[in-house]
Amino acid sequence: MFDKNYILPHKALSLILSSFETPAPSIHELKIEECYGRVLAEDIIASEDLPGFARSTVDGYAVRSADTFGAKDTMPAYLAIKAEVFMGQPVSFEIAKGESAKIPTGGMLPKGADAVLMLENAQTVSGDMIEAMKAVAPNENVILAGEDIRNGTQILSKGRRLRAQDIGALAGLGITAVKVYRKPSVAIISTGDEIVPASSSLGPGQVRDINSFTLAGLIQDNGGVAVKKGIIRDEYSLIKQALASALETSDMVLVSGGTSAGVKDMTAEIINGMGSPGVLFHGVAVKPGKPVIGALIGNKPVIGLPGHPAATAVSFDIFIKPLLDALCGLAAGKMPGNFVNAKMKKSIASVAGREDHVRVSLEVDGMELYAVPVLGKSGLITTLVKADGVVVVTGGKLGIDAGEDVIVKLF
Amino acid sequence: MFDKNYILPHKALSLILSSFETPAPSIHELKIEECYGRVLAEDIIASEDLPGFARSTVDGYAVRSADTFGAKDTMPAYLAIKAEVFMGQPVSFEIAKGESAKIPTGGMLPKGADAVLMLENAQTVSGDMIEAMKAVAPNENVILAGEDIRNGTQILSKGRRLRAQDIGALAGLGITAVKVYRKPSVAIISTGDEIVPASSSLGPGQVRDINSFTLAGLIQDNGGVAVKKGIIRDEYSLIKQALASALETSDMVLVSGGTSAGVKDMTAEIINGMGSPGVLFHGVAVKPGKPVIGALIGNKPVIGLPGHPAATAVSFDIFIKPLLDALCGLAAGKMPGNFVNAKMKKSIASVAGREDHVRVSLEVDGMELYAVPVLGKSGLITTLVKADGVVVVTGGKLGIDAGEDVIVKLF
Repeated sequence: MFDKNYILPHKALSLILSSFETPAPSIHELKIEECYGRVLAEDIIASEDLPGFARSTVDGYAVRSADTFGAKDTMPAYLAIKAEVFMGQPVSFEIAKGESAKIPTGGMLPKGADAVLMLENAQTVSGDMIEAMKAVAPNENVILAGEDIRNGTQILSKGRRLRAQDIGALAGLGITAVKVYRKPSVAIISTGDEIVPASSSLGPGQVRDINSFTLAGLIQDNGGVAVKKGIIRDEYSLIKQALASALETSDMVLVSGGTSAGVKDMTAEIINGMGSPGVLFHGVAVKPGKPVIGALIGNKPVIGLPGHPAATAVSFDIFIKPLLDALCGLAAGKMPGNFVNAKMKKSIASVAGREDHVRVSLEVDGMELYAVPVLGKSGLITTLVKADGVVVVTGGKLGIDAGEDVIVKLF
Repeated sequence: MFDKNYILPHKALSLILSSFETPAPSIHELKIEECYGRVLAEDIIASEDLPGFARSTVDGYAVRSADTFGAKDTMPAYLAIKAEVFMGQPVSFEIAKGESAKIPTGGMLPKGADAVLMLENAQTVSGDMIEAMKAVAPNENVILAGEDIRNGTQILSKGRRLRAQDIGALAGLGITAVKVYRKPSVAIISTGDEIVPASSSLGPGQVRDINSFTLAGLIQDNGGVAVKKGIIRDEYSLIKQALASALETSDMVLVSGGTSAGVKDMTAEIINGMGSPGVLFHGVAVKPGKPVIGALIGNKPVIGLPGHPAATAVSFDIFIKPLLDALCGLAAGKMPGNFVNAKMKKSIASVAGREDHVRVSLEVDGMELYAVPVLGKSGLITTLVKADGVVVVTGGKLGIDAGEDVIVKLF
């Protein structure tokens, strides 16, 4: 039975995001080799030209291009070899009319020269003379000083997650330390009288804590620090105490489980008792993950998650990741995640007004990539282990036909 | 001038992969909370059923389904409430004909019951009697013992990179430590008389070491441990010594730079002098990255990389990543990376027989995702900083037209 009054996930998310004033994350300065994957807390402006001097992009001869104009195989231009440019060494000589200098790829262009004739277009006549078999234009085979990065240009912006090549660019500019945001901490409270630690053997009616392990991994993958607050029994005072302690030390709190009807209401009641604005939504038109709670205490997000593993993973994607991105100081990106286009292998049905997040595994068949629905109740762990990603059936659709093009959001 | 005799990248890669006998990486056992992103070194077989008992998937009443057959709003079935099931507690009673028991989501099904009537389909008549307003089928709203994972089933295979939800599944089965492969170590030797450390100010003709920073990040992103062996001058004996030392302590060696014609031959010569089979290819029909060297010394891959930053990143993707995956013990995946479909924004030209790896940035325009070529010589760092990924123009194509559908391989 699906309650049509439940709000759609994107509306629920905007309810919480619009009330949430992203706190300025605190900042620390780290060496660039520690900054892979970290979020930049400052704009980076180049304070020098890169390269700092005109460089050859080929092996050849530095020349005055005008000296080669009109040169061809059948009528070469003769140029004296004045000297040789060596890598990493200052060039003290100058190229005058009718002169050239041997230069390696990356070598510094001597004064007077404005182009490089490629080695294969030069014929050595004697030890100190070449024939240029081809004309070169001004600046041909040359990177000018500042052509890559000009002094004063902004090369990286605040809020960017630094990739390997960005760190390389910083190194190239001689910037060996940058300011990055501290990682936000996210507390995980596992609740449920039936939940026991992963290391326990099971008594009748007991299940092991799965979700704190899944959530901790997802939090780390997305740049946060996961803090497990342990397994708490379904008792008002115990959950309240755990939530209060988590709110004190963390930037966001996840309460996993508490699936029985009575406890669900209790969790919402406890959250509301901790401060305002309190619970912003309780129950969302999404499958799996219907009973999710979204709340703010002061300005800290508190998300109540259903105990089912698949519902936990879907709720993470919809509600927790956007909040965590904001807490990380991440600027809004062009891409909300990694997607791949595929064809649906089997038809799946949905219900109008509800958003279905269908777990799929990817299968290559001939030249086509197929999304195969991983069937199973949302309480099953195996659906998540088998799945490579999720296909979303939006609220307005009644299902997806076999063969239909779909976008798979990869885990 | 493009040499048509150079081999295409996939042929070069298969040359080295076919000669390379993937060594069995060494194995250590770690707690599961340390295994996010690590590669599993054993098959995981469940040694118990999950769940260990039949559980309700809803809040409601555990019943004998036969007692509800024919029940409807207008003609309900009357059932006595015998007891209540509490989360995490053993259930000592049994449901006889005409009886029911209140049960929460996740609660253990009592003996005798074979289905759960949802709360909203039950009407309480008195404190100890309900009306079932709907029939339930056998096993309805129930997850049977072993329905998620059956004792003896293989749930994860050797060679899998463990994701957050896989760690969750291990926790659910009570498996708190697993065997994973040790991370392979990859040595980076930066060569070039013009190269100075990132912390140096630049003299004439000098440039800072960029590639060791980019490579270290890419190696870490792909599950390896990067070991920087420093900046080595272009001298035969120094490079030879650095390579020998790197081969002793690392599983793979990258030699970056050595771009001048003389030095390129020297690097290949040094590698050949270290052992067999030596250099397998030197020069590949790819842009950027033409002068790449692929070699095996004993069974250790040695890759010589052009000094240009963009060529380094492209060569990493084509040659280093597949070798690193093998060294990590990773089983061949379904997906070689993260891709996204887009439309080309501008036409780009290529040369037949050469594979062009064009850096692109992604741009959303209306409902369409566009791949915009980031123009610039391959020596420019900024092309890599601006790019979100790469579009490959295969050897048989002469270019890509504006508006054409392309696949972008994301960084």
